[in-house]
Amino acid sequence: MGKLREPLDNIHSCGLPVALEVMGERWSFMILRAAFNGVRHFEDFLGVLGIARNILSNRLARLVEYGVMQREPLPDDRRKIAYRLTDKGYDLLPALIALRQWGEKHGLGVAANPVLCDARDGEPIAPITIRSHDGRVLDVRDLEWRMRGEAREEAMAAAL
Amino acid sequence: MGKLREPLDNIHSCGLPVALEVMGERWSFMILRAAFNGVRHFEDFLGVLGIARNILSNRLARLVEYGVMQREPLPDDRRKIAYRLTDKGYDLLPALIALRQWGEKHGLGVAANPVLCDARDGEPIAPITIRSHDGRVLDVRDLEWRMRGEAREEAMAAAL
Repeated sequence: MGKLREPLDNIHSCGLPVALEVMGERWSFMILRAAFNGVRHFEDFLGVLGIARNILSNRLARLVEYGVMQREPLPDDRRKIAYRLTDKGYDLLPALIALRQWGEKHGLGVAANPVLCDARDGEPIAPITIRSHDGRVLDVRDLEWRMRGEAREEAMAAAL
Repeated sequence: MGKLREPLDNIHSCGLPVALEVMGERWSFMILRAAFNGVRHFEDFLGVLGIARNILSNRLARLVEYGVMQREPLPDDRRKIAYRLTDKGYDLLPALIALRQWGEKHGLGVAANPVLCDARDGEPIAPITIRSHDGRVLDVRDLEWRMRGEAREEAMAAAL
């Protein structure tokens, strides 16, 4: 990283604490993983996750409260509830996959199976990377902090 | 996601639980964020994070144990320790930035400042996305699970 250091005490202008308020607990990610795989009902989450009933109930309520999932009564039996990911929930997929790929690369010791693939050509997806606005892959050494406003202005000045 | 559902009970072949074993707790990510910003010493982590001493001590020990950070005695005073990110730790940056961007988009309500930029052209980095092996941006609807081996073979058969 470059010269400017992010002001670490000013957590109200960083998105990370906000994200961790919602997702900073391992069960939240495991529930999300199950939801991405099509699990919809309380009893099914309970079965696939091996999570305690009260913890699942608490975590689902929190994910609904934060708008990551929504509760939908089923049309044929309105006492039954389906939990579905919202668009805000689907937006967590890059973070989830990046964590998963890190675990595969560094912790697993065996190749993950099944593999997440592009449906169009059947090839495994690429590793999640950090990229510039025009698509170049960036390394930590290519990054620096800039104050908002300064970023674009300097780039424009350089282009003149 | 496509037809095949990931076997959710087989968590030994998924990288996500491995990653969450190390990172599934909000302080781990906040420590990582500080480390990416150049914080190196116990007292400095304590100061910028507002974390309790015993929790910081516990989390740093865990990050060292899992090889995300390493302890280095300082050459001028070997009683003093620097905590540095390892390559394995730097590999968590895409997941960290993806979480942060999600928080900025969905939770913050104000624009994040400063902004993480590409040092080469000063432009803010792109949103972290899921991409195919040849670089196309993929949506959740473009993804499907395939058993390892099957992926490439089918792609080769399709190319013939």
